[in-house]
Amino acid sequence: MARLIPVADPADPRLADYTRLRDVNLRKSLEAEHGLFMAEGEKVIRRAIATGHPVRSVLAAHRWVEPLSDVLGDAPVYVVDDAVAEAVTGFPVHRGALASMERLPLPSVGTLLPGVRRILVLEDLVDHGNVGAIFRCAAALGVEAVVLSPRCADPLYRRSVKVSMGAVFAVPYARMTDWHGGLAELRAAGFTLLALTPDQSATPIGKAPLGERVALMLGAEGDGLSSRWLREADEPVCIPMSGDAMDLGVDSLNVVAAAAIACHELMRPGVL
Amino acid sequence: MARLIPVADPADPRLADYTRLRDVNLRKSLEAEHGLFMAEGEKVIRRAIATGHPVRSVLAAHRWVEPLSDVLGDAPVYVVDDAVAEAVTGFPVHRGALASMERLPLPSVGTLLPGVRRILVLEDLVDHGNVGAIFRCAAALGVEAVVLSPRCADPLYRRSVKVSMGAVFAVPYARMTDWHGGLAELRAAGFTLLALTPDQSATPIGKAPLGERVALMLGAEGDGLSSRWLREADEPVCIPMSGDAMDLGVDSLNVVAAAAIACHELMRPGVL
Ligand SMILES: C[S@@+](CC[C@H](N)C(=O)[O-])C[C@H]1O[C@@H](n2cnc3c(N)ncnc32)[C@H](O)[C@@H]1O
Ligand SMILES: C[S@@+](CC[C@H](N)C(=O)[O-])C[C@H]1O[C@@H](n2cnc3c(N)ncnc32)[C@H](O)[C@@H]1O
Repeated sequence: MARLIPVADPADPRLADYTRLRDVNLRKSLEAEHGLFMAEGEKVIRRAIATGHPVRSVLAAHRWVEPLSDVLGDAPVYVVDDAVAEAVTGFPVHRGALASMERLPLPSVGTLLPGVRRILVLEDLVDHGNVGAIFRCAAALGVEAVVLSPRCADPLYRRSVKVSMGAVFAVPYARMTDWHGGLAELRAAGFTLLALTPDQSATPIGKAPLGERVALMLGAEGDGLSSRWLREADEPVCIPMSGDAMDLGVDSLNVVAAAAIACHELMRPGVL
Repeated sequence: MARLIPVADPADPRLADYTRLRDVNLRKSLEAEHGLFMAEGEKVIRRAIATGHPVRSVLAAHRWVEPLSDVLGDAPVYVVDDAVAEAVTGFPVHRGALASMERLPLPSVGTLLPGVRRILVLEDLVDHGNVGAIFRCAAALGVEAVVLSPRCADPLYRRSVKVSMGAVFAVPYARMTDWHGGLAELRAAGFTLLALTPDQSATPIGKAPLGERVALMLGAEGDGLSSRWLREADEPVCIPMSGDAMDLGVDSLNVVAAAAIACHELMRPGVL
């Protein structure tokens, strides 16, 4: 019962939510101002709707509307041809429909934690693809929640959502309001804070001290974890790398690879 | 002693190697025809030169030339301002210099294998970022070589090189010429072929049969490994996922995460 509205003019103001999707700065301010985010493709749009996110509108070529029509309710569906879609969004929209969805209020860190035993804590990751990929790992590998530092990239940014395959809707997350006091709140809740670092003199992950509740802390590509957070952690922990890695010019794993290995280690039988 | 040549016209034919770097199809044919690839940024360009790749030319804003001048030899360095760089390449060239480099002849699979005990075999991965990230994992986690199926994405494509952080120059690789007979050649060389699959009824990776020589086979995002390769493998092997993953809409790991975990498992003390 989708409400189809053909649109032929890329400048039509009803398409404003979909403007220049590749312009990160523009999108950040537009999405924050209107409390919206973009979901792309049938599977992800279905996931977003199933997890309670209201649909503001949909932008799609005619062929992509039908497969979604059972879940769109009475949201307006702007039906455009491929050229109009590209003129508005700034890239070829091959993958199907785009939906502009409403954000839900995020829980506070305090309300996220009860009942949760394994969390990831991401410090200032700026790459949206990495954030999305880490959510997919979390969902696949039994991590129950994600805590973001105040400056960490937005899990609901289009690229994060896409790379996560919708896992950003499935794994609960919260954003710290205070970088300084953020870890103390987790420790007070009984989490053992493990700081993942490529430093090979740290405790190997297989021998890390694990309590009832474990927080794996991960840092960004260039800088890694801040020295403050490293200092505040209960234990610096490393994933062993090959002795040849340095000679090969590789001094660390990508943060997604590190997250995957660390989550997998937590899942080893008998660990938690 | 770099040979600096200021260029003001984006249509200057000497810049032809750098045309429309975001146009995958154009780049594929251009790079194949001229046997070239792009290296981006000081660190990666240094790595490429250190591993013996001749420089055809460099495109850079003036500020990026000096840090590289000790390694450029007498290759022409086209010095451009940011607007010209963007007009030629089709995107803002923030990260510094771009170098057009000559490809070296690839070894055959047969010449790649002697002395090598752990390899990755990638079947038809189409995403250049994933291929690059897997090379970085391989270098970090002690995998000695990578074998590509005939249709696997090019490790020397710009995005692969960048995401790999230069590991594509460090980890030797070869491309199978024959998809049908490719695995038989590996088995004949004594490799145990482990097919990584999200199918949770497969042998968990921690219990996989490991021989002296191990090949980890990985498939692409949508399709996974082909049924032919799954059948030909010695053993299908899975990374255990959380019982909740399916309910969360996640039926597999991203291939980079899977590669990272599998390589890490091979590095466990006592495994090889
Ligand atoms: C690319 S690394 C950061 C590298 C940075 N130069 C540093 O020294 O921390 C990004 C993040 O991935 C994780 N990481 C990467 N390699 C790791 C390893 N071998 N062991 C544990 N964590 C690792 C860490 O959390 C790190 O902050
Ligand atoms: C995104 S998955 C492919 C999913 C595909 N639908 C399938 O069923 O194979 C890409 C590749 O990553 C690897 N992979 C993903 N999750 C895995 C898991 N839990 N265990 C082992 N390998 C996995 C496999 O090699 C797979 O071919």
